[in-house]
Amino acid sequence: MTVSVQTAAEALTELVGAANCTVAAQDKRPYLTDYRGIFHGEAMVVVTPVSTQQVGDVVSWCYRHDVPVVPQGGNTSLMGGAVPDDTGTAVVISLRKLNRVLSVDVVNDTMTVQAGVTLAAAREAAENAQRLFPLRIGSEGSCQIGGNVSTNAGGTAVLRYGNMRDLVLGIEVVLPDGRIYSSLKGLRKDNTGYDLKQLFIGAEGTLGIVTAVVLKLAPQPRATAAAFIAVKNPHAAVALLQAAKIGSGNAVSAFELVSAPALELVLDYLGDAKSPLQHAHEWMVLMELTSGGTDEALHAALLDILELGFAEGLIEDAAIAASLADIQAFWRIREDISDAQTRAGGSIKCDVSVPISRIADFIDAASAEVLALDPEIRLVIYGHLGDGNVHFNPLRPRDQQAAEFLARHYRVVSETVDGLAHREHGSISAEHGIGVVKRDDLRKYKSEVELQLMWQVKRALDPKNLLNPGRVLPEPDDPCAIH
Amino acid sequence: MTVSVQTAAEALTELVGAANCTVAAQDKRPYLTDYRGIFHGEAMVVVTPVSTQQVGDVVSWCYRHDVPVVPQGGNTSLMGGAVPDDTGTAVVISLRKLNRVLSVDVVNDTMTVQAGVTLAAAREAAENAQRLFPLRIGSEGSCQIGGNVSTNAGGTAVLRYGNMRDLVLGIEVVLPDGRIYSSLKGLRKDNTGYDLKQLFIGAEGTLGIVTAVVLKLAPQPRATAAAFIAVKNPHAAVALLQAAKIGSGNAVSAFELVSAPALELVLDYLGDAKSPLQHAHEWMVLMELTSGGTDEALHAALLDILELGFAEGLIEDAAIAASLADIQAFWRIREDISDAQTRAGGSIKCDVSVPISRIADFIDAASAEVLALDPEIRLVIYGHLGDGNVHFNPLRPRDQQAAEFLARHYRVVSETVDGLAHREHGSISAEHGIGVVKRDDLRKYKSEVELQLMWQVKRALDPKNLLNPGRVLPEPDDPCAIH
Repeated sequence: MTVSVQTAAEALTELVGAANCTVAAQDKRPYLTDYRGIFHGEAMVVVTPVSTQQVGDVVSWCYRHDVPVVPQGGNTSLMGGAVPDDTGTAVVISLRKLNRVLSVDVVNDTMTVQAGVTLAAAREAAENAQRLFPLRIGSEGSCQIGGNVSTNAGGTAVLRYGNMRDLVLGIEVVLPDGRIYSSLKGLRKDNTGYDLKQLFIGAEGTLGIVTAVVLKLAPQPRATAAAFIAVKNPHAAVALLQAAKIGSGNAVSAFELVSAPALELVLDYLGDAKSPLQHAHEWMVLMELTSGGTDEALHAALLDILELGFAEGLIEDAAIAASLADIQAFWRIREDISDAQTRAGGSIKCDVSVPISRIADFIDAASAEVLALDPEIRLVIYGHLGDGNVHFNPLRPRDQQAAEFLARHYRVVSETVDGLAHREHGSISAEHGIGVVKRDDLRKYKSEVELQLMWQVKRALDPKNLLNPGRVLPEPDDPCAIH
Repeated sequence: MTVSVQTAAEALTELVGAANCTVAAQDKRPYLTDYRGIFHGEAMVVVTPVSTQQVGDVVSWCYRHDVPVVPQGGNTSLMGGAVPDDTGTAVVISLRKLNRVLSVDVVNDTMTVQAGVTLAAAREAAENAQRLFPLRIGSEGSCQIGGNVSTNAGGTAVLRYGNMRDLVLGIEVVLPDGRIYSSLKGLRKDNTGYDLKQLFIGAEGTLGIVTAVVLKLAPQPRATAAAFIAVKNPHAAVALLQAAKIGSGNAVSAFELVSAPALELVLDYLGDAKSPLQHAHEWMVLMELTSGGTDEALHAALLDILELGFAEGLIEDAAIAASLADIQAFWRIREDISDAQTRAGGSIKCDVSVPISRIADFIDAASAEVLALDPEIRLVIYGHLGDGNVHFNPLRPRDQQAAEFLARHYRVVSETVDGLAHREHGSISAEHGIGVVKRDDLRKYKSEVELQLMWQVKRALDPKNLLNPGRVLPEPDDPCAIH
């Protein structure tokens, strides 16, 4: 069955009202390109429902008429997960008008929010109640909770608080056929059958559209201490991490690696910032401790760890934050590396994870292989060492244009880095997800049984393959083998 | 197709060897009754495979011959989840011979173990590596990791470390048709498609048979402080919990409620133990703090919390543990309540959870309704208040026989307590699971969409409904409505 744009527009306008149904090209445009402007698509209609029921009605109509549906949050996916394909056959459902914080329960330490609430707004709502919603990623002002759930967002607070999956207690989802599954419970323990919410977390909108969630809150930490530390190499960084975890009694809340090229790039980008360290070093770590105790005690724990690190030859130098402003300055450097790269152009982004015990060897091996291609490539390596996750992002040589660099090296660098991570029993996408970018790579890095299982689940929930089609799941080699 | 016992025995003996295939009635007996002796069943054959491949071979054979399969761990389920039904048509697969700790990675803080390793052995393996495997439940000497995963076990360390689901990083599973899905990765972050392991955690063996897992370890806490505290009532307990979480900076590792009848029962059972408190009180809490700091600092934090609790009228009295022996004595009291109840006979076990903000009201309401049935019923109420989870277990009046009490009150008490928990958006089985005992209750407490979704997943993975059939999922009212 093929539905005309006019038929779709009329039907959907009836369901959500003219103010929430967009057909004109210029009005649809913001929904058809991701925020970086890398992925472009087309759509028959864009709808912005104002209630879960409206989302259900739209999806139900699409299901009955075999119309593909692309759910969209803040549209900040790095993997093209939220932009429709170029066929123009899909309806885009933006969740942005489902943007209410429904309730905050400070005794239960939970918060119920709709999918379109931005991460920044969710964090603020928690803060207003003297609580912490710990998820922290660069795009917090734009990205939305529904997208954070659907991509199982990670970021810089995972070491202490886990990924988004660990922060979701209850969920409300519109299923591919338009039924609404609502289980907005704020329970830490509930063993009454399959934990269905797990299906939708990290499924990138291919199994259902998240419309609301109950999130876990934490007490606000009372003390924070941080240091910007020059370490001998990634092996020393891992040893320091171990010492810090044990020495602080698990108070390490962030342990972020920064390579020299990454620091250089971000300082150049920021302009007004300078390195916290006097001299240049090959490898640095931003370590943060948080606790519910006193600043003095935490500061003392930090000094003990650094002293041990110096004594064992792991550390070359360290700048200790003397104020909140210092801590913020350290974080600004770390967090703006990504934007600095975007401006520089010509990066090959590899978001990999391996067991923490293997990450230093992995960095050594991947660095050697990439530099063998061209010793002028800048190894912008940074990220969440404490989670075994680094952004290994080779950057074009200074005298090479982005397009030339990417054309020459994109494929081989990606394959090399991903292949090395895979060999270490790692992941080729630690936190960025799959979207369209990595979809077909899964054939290479997943077992046949794993891909079959993914399709078994997909077909069980979305037998018509209408929900965010073409995302996450590679087309099966032999469709008949899977049923 | 009906397979004879002899055919099955011959085929399975060929697959696993005679030493691992049991047909004689007396040899099968231990596998056909749970450890409490409450649930009884029959089976054609019991097999005890010694490798994942053998498990796969057995399941594959059963699948081809339409033979139901019942996986079994330590057989400590309280819900009849691991004992076959009485038709005698099933093959029981005991995982007990898959009992090796495969590896411990202290840098990655992970451990890879086979499903048949007991919880106690897993905890010991971690301890030998100076790490903590935090799951702690009463049956640790018998229960097995595979069962802990399949039932998403909870226990007394959930407040700090989460349920079993939060402790599993990688998994190996034999699927209902005998395929082996192996993903024994030790990664904190991996967003490469659906997180398939979540399907099998808490599914009580109805979607696959867990054969091995990668578990998350934690640093061993360096300091522990504990107090046995008389609180005014459950409302005061909740207020104290809040104050303790904030005042200790989230160092509360256990917060266990104990009602007066629960204490009386366990002291009588233990014989040689006495109450840590001088006088009798209606409600008590065992609070434990752990940290990586010093004992002195933690002790000071505990004193601050207690002082605040006294000042605010929440606390009536408190005994502070002065030694490790004291802490162990407190825990012995808490942990033996369950055995004390078993010996006393005539308890109605309700394992419910509600939001922490609603738990005191829930206890008030449920207590009033149960006492209205018979004011002599003893309200043995205890458990994990810090998780919103209490074991609300009315016990027969002293002068009433167990059988009479259960015949008279079992149904109405269960329905009353579960109904009240449900009304508070709670769970009728916080940590014990569903098994056969609560299976048909799900009709009442789950939405139609939720039950449909459970069946959609079940049928996708186990289209012949051969894996632990009759467990967890209630038969659909209209089988045709689900597909």
